[in-house]
Amino acid sequence: MTTRVGILGATGAVGQRLVQLLDPHPEFEIACVTASDDSAGRPYGEAANWRIDVPMPDALADLDVARTEPDAIPDDVPLLFSSLPSAVGERVEPPLCEAGYVVSSNSSNDRMADDVPLTIPEVNGDHLDLIEVQRDSRDWDGALVKNPNCSTITAVPPLAALAEFGLETAHVATMQAVSGGGYSGVTSMEIIDNVLPHIGGEEEKVETEPTKLLGEFDGAEVKRHEVDIAASCNRVATVDGHLESVWADTREDITADDAARAMRELPALDLHSSPDQFIEVFEDPDRPQPRLDRMVGGGMSVAAGGLRETTRGVQFNCLAHNTLRGAAGASVLNGELLVERGWV
Amino acid sequence: MTTRVGILGATGAVGQRLVQLLDPHPEFEIACVTASDDSAGRPYGEAANWRIDVPMPDALADLDVARTEPDAIPDDVPLLFSSLPSAVGERVEPPLCEAGYVVSSNSSNDRMADDVPLTIPEVNGDHLDLIEVQRDSRDWDGALVKNPNCSTITAVPPLAALAEFGLETAHVATMQAVSGGGYSGVTSMEIIDNVLPHIGGEEEKVETEPTKLLGEFDGAEVKRHEVDIAASCNRVATVDGHLESVWADTREDITADDAARAMRELPALDLHSSPDQFIEVFEDPDRPQPRLDRMVGGGMSVAAGGLRETTRGVQFNCLAHNTLRGAAGASVLNGELLVERGWV
Amino acid sequence: MTTRVGILGATGAVGQRLVQLLDPHPEFEIACVTASDDSAGRPYGEAANWRIDVPMPDALADLDVARTEPDAIPDDVPLLFSSLPSAVGERVEPPLCEAGYVVSSNSSNDRMADDVPLTIPEVNGDHLDLIEVQRDSRDWDGALVKNPNCSTITAVPPLAALAEFGLETAHVATMQAVSGGGYSGVTSMEIIDNVLPHIGGEEEKVETEPTKLLGEFDGAEVKRHEVDIAASCNRVATVDGHLESVWADTREDITADDAARAMRELPALDLHSSPDQFIEVFEDPDRPQPRLDRMVGGGMSVAAGGLRETTRGVQFNCLAHNTLRGAAGASVLNGELLVERGWV
Amino acid sequence: MTTRVGILGATGAVGQRLVQLLDPHPEFEIACVTASDDSAGRPYGEAANWRIDVPMPDALADLDVARTEPDAIPDDVPLLFSSLPSAVGERVEPPLCEAGYVVSSNSSNDRMADDVPLTIPEVNGDHLDLIEVQRDSRDWDGALVKNPNCSTITAVPPLAALAEFGLETAHVATMQAVSGGGYSGVTSMEIIDNVLPHIGGEEEKVETEPTKLLGEFDGAEVKRHEVDIAASCNRVATVDGHLESVWADTREDITADDAARAMRELPALDLHSSPDQFIEVFEDPDRPQPRLDRMVGGGMSVAAGGLRETTRGVQFNCLAHNTLRGAAGASVLNGELLVERGWV
Repeated sequence: MTTRVGILGATGAVGQRLVQLLDPHPEFEIACVTASDDSAGRPYGEAANWRIDVPMPDALADLDVARTEPDAIPDDVPLLFSSLPSAVGERVEPPLCEAGYVVSSNSSNDRMADDVPLTIPEVNGDHLDLIEVQRDSRDWDGALVKNPNCSTITAVPPLAALAEFGLETAHVATMQAVSGGGYSGVTSMEIIDNVLPHIGGEEEKVETEPTKLLGEFDGAEVKRHEVDIAASCNRVATVDGHLESVWADTREDITADDAARAMRELPALDLHSSPDQFIEVFEDPDRPQPRLDRMVGGGMSVAAGGLRETTRGVQFNCLAHNTLRGAAGASVLNGELLVERGWV
Repeated sequence: MTTRVGILGATGAVGQRLVQLLDPHPEFEIACVTASDDSAGRPYGEAANWRIDVPMPDALADLDVARTEPDAIPDDVPLLFSSLPSAVGERVEPPLCEAGYVVSSNSSNDRMADDVPLTIPEVNGDHLDLIEVQRDSRDWDGALVKNPNCSTITAVPPLAALAEFGLETAHVATMQAVSGGGYSGVTSMEIIDNVLPHIGGEEEKVETEPTKLLGEFDGAEVKRHEVDIAASCNRVATVDGHLESVWADTREDITADDAARAMRELPALDLHSSPDQFIEVFEDPDRPQPRLDRMVGGGMSVAAGGLRETTRGVQFNCLAHNTLRGAAGASVLNGELLVERGWV
Repeated sequence: MTTRVGILGATGAVGQRLVQLLDPHPEFEIACVTASDDSAGRPYGEAANWRIDVPMPDALADLDVARTEPDAIPDDVPLLFSSLPSAVGERVEPPLCEAGYVVSSNSSNDRMADDVPLTIPEVNGDHLDLIEVQRDSRDWDGALVKNPNCSTITAVPPLAALAEFGLETAHVATMQAVSGGGYSGVTSMEIIDNVLPHIGGEEEKVETEPTKLLGEFDGAEVKRHEVDIAASCNRVATVDGHLESVWADTREDITADDAARAMRELPALDLHSSPDQFIEVFEDPDRPQPRLDRMVGGGMSVAAGGLRETTRGVQFNCLAHNTLRGAAGASVLNGELLVERGWV
Repeated sequence: MTTRVGILGATGAVGQRLVQLLDPHPEFEIACVTASDDSAGRPYGEAANWRIDVPMPDALADLDVARTEPDAIPDDVPLLFSSLPSAVGERVEPPLCEAGYVVSSNSSNDRMADDVPLTIPEVNGDHLDLIEVQRDSRDWDGALVKNPNCSTITAVPPLAALAEFGLETAHVATMQAVSGGGYSGVTSMEIIDNVLPHIGGEEEKVETEPTKLLGEFDGAEVKRHEVDIAASCNRVATVDGHLESVWADTREDITADDAARAMRELPALDLHSSPDQFIEVFEDPDRPQPRLDRMVGGGMSVAAGGLRETTRGVQFNCLAHNTLRGAAGASVLNGELLVERGWV
């Protein structure tokens, strides 16, 4: 039996990836797509400037785009995937949750709210139970679940693997792909023969979201992890795939081999979109590379490599496909977990 | 009065930059250029596959390329600039120094030798006096002086400015331009839509060379600075200009303003190739960028920006033109200082 | 004696190049800069998102930006350089000309109007005399002079050199730099690892503008040249410099040597911004290349190479810096000619 | 029943694509891989620097690489796919054919030999019968079959569709991907922010190979087609996918619609690697684009777009994946046809 789902913000860069993932999905059926008022009322095939290198699914081309408003969403669509600009998400997601929809959202609004689960299924799937608290406090029939920022999702799985060694501090330098800025976010004049050393708001996300993701949920609240993270976020001329240089300092002694083993042993899940191997650790110091390795695990694995001991812990590189594992795939995976756990 | 100079390895990427800088130089006159045996005997204009975006100086086009051997260098050329592959440098530089030539070298061989000055004039010009020690120990009439690796030169000036606050540890993630690998070092298949997370041997250079550059010369030896550096070196799709994300932890409390002031106040020198402002600190968090800012100070300044306090010190970005300030310009500046101080 | 000039649309990509060229210009003095209403009233240093790799001239940083309206331009500024969006140019240029200003414009509006000179000084400077006709027919005190589209300017000089052989048809395939689309015209998602095979409106310009440029002015009108041009315009991932593959079919027999000689002999002018050599012809079949050769002649020469005979004429490549020779420099050169000929 | 096959030159850029296509192929079984003497004797997984963005097939990793010599190929491998450097192909292919192997080769040697079929199955599959002539004249038990150059394969299918209108002349400007030069053929310094206006030997191939492909085989020889082609070959910064601007002049009048219809109606074949639609014609003038459309038809279709009438015929853009349809896939398709027609 499939679940009818909607996609909020379906014409954007992440929205198109949601379409790509959900159209052939055996558990979900796309029943509705929404976009801004400019696109509403037009067939999706016309409204979306499709920019993915596989063709737009035929079934979607003729689907009419709805406005992103509660009353434009059919009642028999229990699960919504959201990749809205945060200002829009902030306005429309809560009323939808109040009206009974479960929203698996990639939008950055409300990620750090105390009663909103911020979840990577393999890392902290148990945080979904925070929905109980959320429903109590907000008097909602639906629920709001968030996945983290794409650059956070890249670094947190390896850091989660190192938590057992007493993770104390981390330094993260990102080299992020242009698709993370949306289709028009980064101009060609900005990025050819260039690197942008700053992405507005990004460093704060990488520094704060992990404390929630790595925190412990005690049934009432998520106790934040005390890791102290400093991030420097850079934009480079890659299409997809965020690569990050990370240093993790641990209380306990740790070798590069210990770290590799811990990363490899972080279990994958048995959800439809889960990769067989959650973290793929490369031995070759030249890997992972964005162009060659972003599709590892169908774009849903996190890749790591270049492990080396430092005087205070280990350093490594990590890579994830920012619009698959880091955005659309992250929301879909959360949706699959929501269904499996009975929240939808 | 001008000094007659030679260029060893004049056809390579850095060698061409040396030609570009030395041809119009008011204090130097290019008297000889050398290259590998394949090129020897041919006019420079034919032997060099000129790849700089200003035309090859006319005077050089007809100059015959000599072999890179002591007996191929005229006696009346007291100063040689060297940008040889390190294996070649190791073999030919010492005999040249023994024969009385002063060699200002960009080659990586012998940089960490105890009696070889490793010098950035604005940072540790006084280390040149190590030449006394060198001449004594090696019984040379000439001298061998090195400039550091291009990625080291980018990070060390800002770190030198922070030394007064008790610099303890640094994390450095580099995003290096392809010209740093020489004309054929990085293939197009490797770098289009990609980042390479590893550059062989580079991390070790960035971790060790600064301890010598920031060390104190006591008249007999250079006492290494105790800063503990961890580096992760990445290659990105820029032509010129290494950008680096740096975290510096200091014993003393330090604000971003303190750091900016200290960087701005690091004095420039009065040499021909010195920029007016040694470290250019940008307020705009989007700067410095390789394409826009690598030519600051004629390609001889170091640019910094994105200063931010962390719990343990400050973080910042820095940028230098890797084949000018980071290589050819570094050697030329050392050459100018050698002449000014009377070593040539 | 210098002429006071204004720049209309001074904050855009071409506007910034106009500032770069006009600030140090010995014959002109920038008295006024205009931009859209969003920018009006702010200092230029704040309103312009400066994106050229040399610093913004200090003198301009504090100049207040005016609105692009006739009454916002001081009366004592006889010459205006215009790089406005064509819809704006169409609206504001004619009233300015009526009010007595001479406008040297890069905007595409009115380029093909019968009484508007469309001029490349070295090719058809005599067409400036069409201003007499223009003033008569429009009852203007000022004048409107246009330079062609950047991709036209690249191909026309070599074609003009071949006119003596009876130029009949031409095929032009362009590979145009992203700066031609303005700062935000081409997104990074569109161009990394990609080529765009279409630029709206561009092919028509390349096919029609040359017939006017190569036409004969008989004192009353410009008789269009009958060359039949077919163009295919592509956008590639270069920052600056349009490269074009051209086939020119001629009535008379022509060798590659004839063509090279004719191109080299097309005379340069004696204006301040004229290059010494108008068309630089390369022997090396690998040249010209955008990155290496766009700055030939200070960015004001046209480069050609790869000359080869075909069964119907010759084929060649040509290159010009699209925002210098192809836009801002083109307008400045027209301005210099307007002053020299006494129209200002 | 599967055919055992060998891959000559299996470690190069095209060789890796052959491995990628042949490993999962239902009709073929990779029995042997060869490479240069440096690689011979090592397992393929070690000898090949795998650079494709899907993992190397497990079965291949342990296969020992053989030398590219007749006596190193097992006797029970009737079909060999060859992507050798032409100098090597020239030396080893004929003895292999003499020894009874059928060689489907992508190497450029012998493509224009009168008794060697140069074949694109959908265009001139009947030319395979030239093998009879070949076996007679050379006294071979095996056979040598060639596919054309990658840039030829891109342009010829649309030109073949236009042949019915009396194709007289064509102008072809290519914008070729770097993978066409092999892994080390184009350096990053050459291509970032640049276009190379010349590819040695390429123009001649594009000008001559089509006359053979479009020629008529009369049972004894291929009568060359009389189309007069002029080509200009450029290298751009794309990883895969050659885009070409083409003008085709025809004796008969032709509209853009006629041309589109003729292209769409060129029949596909029923071979395993045949795409459903041989030539995919886009209506959107912005397509085809290399990054978005090179994988149309699994990388085996040819894409066309931008159709427009000229005074002498039509102009259009075309695109094919240069290492799939343009090289490895071309050889595999020829191999499938060789088996189907009973030559293997």
